[in-house]
Amino acid sequence: MPIVLAAATEQSGVILSLFIMIAAAKLMAEVFERLRQPAVVGEILAGVIIGPSLLGWVRPSEMIGVLAEVGVIFLLFMVGLETKPQSVFRVGKKALFVGTLGVILPFIAGYVIAMAWDGSFVEAMFIGAALVATSVGITARVLGSMGLLDLQTARIILGAAVIDDILGLIILSVVSAMSTGSVDYVELGKTAGLAILFVIFVALVGSKVMNRLAPRVRKLKLSKPFFNIGLILCLGLSVASIYVGVAAIIGAFLAGMAMAEATEGNYGMHKLTNGVTEFFVPFFLVNIGMQLNLAVFKDWDVVLLAVIITIAAVITKFIGCGLGAWGMKPREMAQIGVGMIPRGEVGIVVAQIGLSFAVITERFFAAVLFMAVATTLIAPPLIKLLYSEDKDHDGIDDVIVDTDISDIYPRIG
Amino acid sequence: MPIVLAAATEQSGVILSLFIMIAAAKLMAEVFERLRQPAVVGEILAGVIIGPSLLGWVRPSEMIGVLAEVGVIFLLFMVGLETKPQSVFRVGKKALFVGTLGVILPFIAGYVIAMAWDGSFVEAMFIGAALVATSVGITARVLGSMGLLDLQTARIILGAAVIDDILGLIILSVVSAMSTGSVDYVELGKTAGLAILFVIFVALVGSKVMNRLAPRVRKLKLSKPFFNIGLILCLGLSVASIYVGVAAIIGAFLAGMAMAEATEGNYGMHKLTNGVTEFFVPFFLVNIGMQLNLAVFKDWDVVLLAVIITIAAVITKFIGCGLGAWGMKPREMAQIGVGMIPRGEVGIVVAQIGLSFAVITERFFAAVLFMAVATTLIAPPLIKLLYSEDKDHDGIDDVIVDTDISDIYPRIG
Repeated sequence: MPIVLAAATEQSGVILSLFIMIAAAKLMAEVFERLRQPAVVGEILAGVIIGPSLLGWVRPSEMIGVLAEVGVIFLLFMVGLETKPQSVFRVGKKALFVGTLGVILPFIAGYVIAMAWDGSFVEAMFIGAALVATSVGITARVLGSMGLLDLQTARIILGAAVIDDILGLIILSVVSAMSTGSVDYVELGKTAGLAILFVIFVALVGSKVMNRLAPRVRKLKLSKPFFNIGLILCLGLSVASIYVGVAAIIGAFLAGMAMAEATEGNYGMHKLTNGVTEFFVPFFLVNIGMQLNLAVFKDWDVVLLAVIITIAAVITKFIGCGLGAWGMKPREMAQIGVGMIPRGEVGIVVAQIGLSFAVITERFFAAVLFMAVATTLIAPPLIKLLYSEDKDHDGIDDVIVDTDISDIYPRIG
Repeated sequence: MPIVLAAATEQSGVILSLFIMIAAAKLMAEVFERLRQPAVVGEILAGVIIGPSLLGWVRPSEMIGVLAEVGVIFLLFMVGLETKPQSVFRVGKKALFVGTLGVILPFIAGYVIAMAWDGSFVEAMFIGAALVATSVGITARVLGSMGLLDLQTARIILGAAVIDDILGLIILSVVSAMSTGSVDYVELGKTAGLAILFVIFVALVGSKVMNRLAPRVRKLKLSKPFFNIGLILCLGLSVASIYVGVAAIIGAFLAGMAMAEATEGNYGMHKLTNGVTEFFVPFFLVNIGMQLNLAVFKDWDVVLLAVIITIAAVITKFIGCGLGAWGMKPREMAQIGVGMIPRGEVGIVVAQIGLSFAVITERFFAAVLFMAVATTLIAPPLIKLLYSEDKDHDGIDDVIVDTDISDIYPRIG
């Protein structure tokens, strides 16, 4: 008998973890919605609760990391599906300013704080780099759940996040090279150029190709053609993105954007994709919460450092991105500022690379981790607050029902 | 630069694997449908092609194993959603005969062949056990894609597969205990009793509880309530099944069946669940194909053994289950017989346990693996053939459109 159970334990352990994560995430999301708080926050807190810090029912693992990655990939694919290329191109110049200023200020702040905290030069560069990249998944989910992805500011945030990610890649490359030796600027230029060309090429050509192919695909009478093409394109461009050097979610977003026009009003395709997203996204959010190790915060010095870095991360992104949107209404500048605040998993990855090279110390790692989770938790209520008027004013709720955006994300309040 | 890529390689490796598997599966499914062959066969062959035997682009891994497991869990959940409890209870007695006879004959055949092939007593018991359990996922997918899950014979196959799985568990327990020492019959009786009670209890009570809860759940105005409850119940009962000792898919099937009446005609819930299924099922099918190591078949002795075991597996299941349906029309008996043929992953797991205890040799393991893949490939065309008349006669195609069954599975031809 024990043999049969032993054979089953490993497999059941994984399925048990999935069960606990899904159940906890859905439950907390529901509780937070009842309290009129963002569901996203509830799902991240579910991760803190069931994770190693508190109950210890589930621990972060490679397996869960992959599910989380697939989750954020499909989340951005879904956001891309609601984003017509033209609407992003129209705000391109503004997004460029927002993205660039939103990278420079946080980098300087991180560098200065780390230097003031007795960090080495390379360490300070790493902390700066960890504050740079916005994790747009959180903002996208909150705005999507409010049915506001169509707003101009939402477009600017999405565009700026893509630019932001490319700049983040370049900075991380430079910093990583510094930590191991000299920087090869030619190689660096090549990578950066390739990344930029890839994004521009896919953004410009993808949608046109899909629009051309769509009528022919329909004629073939395949089963669920656009859903299947979506799956393949989403995963394919995610892989391509990683090889080019940008985050997988950028490729997923571009894949969605390429199919936005061709699948507009295709209820079945959106609903099927939505099923995949709804299954995977909780793993992304719970996994963020599970990363937080509350134990390191027994040391008050680390707490102070974490709080200062978090405040700097919030303020510099808010001011940098807000200023980048100069010329718009103050409320819109503030909306863009808060929309860019969440750092999430990108900052964590940067810090992990630094830790693995032994160029940043445990306390900085803990502080960056705290910052990543904290900015992710702080942003949703602020976004909700600053966008609450838009939700009431426009007739967007009707649009939502038509295009089924309300179904794509859980309600937030 | 290399650092950034190094950090990305591990992650991108997994996403690349997912991309290759999804793309290959969808492509081969489409090719086979054009050739009027079952899509399932195409997807398994996709696994053989991209797997270690031929191209070696993707290798079976723990990660892929979990995705495959989640795939077959959701597949059976989906089948359960289309299966009202009453319709299974009505065929309960018939299913009991079909399941039992379909276990006894293959077990004896496996035992005799292994003994004739110079296997030890324990080895022969293991080979017998490996031939026992039907993998109902394949049959369910083929019948579902034809919109025939409503037929009486389909109900009998589903019911018999559940019984079959419980009997298989008991046999595996006995055989495993034999390989390590003496058999504890009291313990064995407890496990078997628990498994049987669990299945009967959930089957009887689950649907009633859900039907009672459904109106109250609707009143709460949650977001996607039945989809979320479905996810949680499906994973929860899968875990419970494993702990009780039966396969996870039994729990998933029972979860679906419990929700069948409460979610009837709930298009949104079915479509969302369908999205999850459509994403995961290819991993289940491709993973079966990847298990096949063609290299062991350079030895003609192994080939002969594999072919004999496969033929025995097909014939004994066909005759055993067919006879179990005594009193029905000959065509229906044959339908039930072929529906029970696929062994799939259950046989593979039994053989792996035997191998890990060093009680079965490599050649028997290879032969069982071949049998598992071969029965899975042989069954779908036979099922399609024997059920082709039912598809034409009844007005079932209309029912399909109404209840959206045709959308749940890809067309087969």
